[in-house]
Amino acid sequence: MADKDLKALFQHALQDVYSAETAILKAMPRMTQAAQSEALRGALAVHQQETEEQVRRLDQIFQQLGERAEGIQCKAIQGIIDEGEEVLQKFSGGEASDAGLIASAQAIEHYEITRYGTLLAWAKQLGLTEAEELLQETLIEEENTDSLLSDLAEDSINPAAAT
Amino acid sequence: MADKDLKALFQHALQDVYSAETAILKAMPRMTQAAQSEALRGALAVHQQETEEQVRRLDQIFQQLGERAEGIQCKAIQGIIDEGEEVLQKFSGGEASDAGLIASAQAIEHYEITRYGTLLAWAKQLGLTEAEELLQETLIEEENTDSLLSDLAEDSINPAAAT
Repeated sequence: MADKDLKALFQHALQDVYSAETAILKAMPRMTQAAQSEALRGALAVHQQETEEQVRRLDQIFQQLGERAEGIQCKAIQGIIDEGEEVLQKFSGGEASDAGLIASAQAIEHYEITRYGTLLAWAKQLGLTEAEELLQETLIEEENTDSLLSDLAEDSINPAAAT
Repeated sequence: MADKDLKALFQHALQDVYSAETAILKAMPRMTQAAQSEALRGALAVHQQETEEQVRRLDQIFQQLGERAEGIQCKAIQGIIDEGEEVLQKFSGGEASDAGLIASAQAIEHYEITRYGTLLAWAKQLGLTEAEELLQETLIEEENTDSLLSDLAEDSINPAAAT
């Protein structure tokens, strides 16, 4: 059943993450603007540029598959983003606002890490070598961003939030 | 502002993950039942028991804080679970059904990993030593489950899905 095989599942997940990246790109400027710490604002701005490049990589993979680049609604990322918005509103102006913002950014990162990790494993299994390389590049960026945000939280944002 | 400080944020995130665990406990039996691979069914059943213990740990932390154990609606996990349900329906009966199921289970794990990682960092910052130990135990379980699912996918589920 070609419509239920691993290649079909790979394409489905690709559409999901394409939609997720689009939603993230839309949410990021507001998150960046809300950051009080300059270091956090800088990290989010850099990641916004990386995200734009990640969308271009997805475009390339769709092209390699001979498919049109399109998303399906990604309910998961929408839920994660909506939750982040709520935390931002609830803690805005308080001392823990940036700590909440980092937590939301890391929830977004972890969603991407799990989806790109899965897509990478499936690309390997399907012998999609070019896609594999592109997915690997993105996965490394996502993991690095997550580590950077953890360091930033532990070194400066959390101590500042607790004072 | 006590209502916007790190302790308030910690309690808010605790309620979020409490609600997430409750939703996961509700979703897991259906996921376990849908698994075609015996090894996957076994891994999900073991994790269901772990999840029950994780809820008990959260109860303990609420108790330590002198707070009532209660959740707030966790939109993020609901989106992740709903997406998993859709994949299950779309690929049910096909050769990639278990591969899709593992991907959904790993998306759930990564949500928990990010939330417990954040809660652990905040507990450390707040000097909540007992909570820190309980959160650390859960985080290790979540990371182990995620690794186990990755191994299972790469060793047997993905190769079977591609044939």
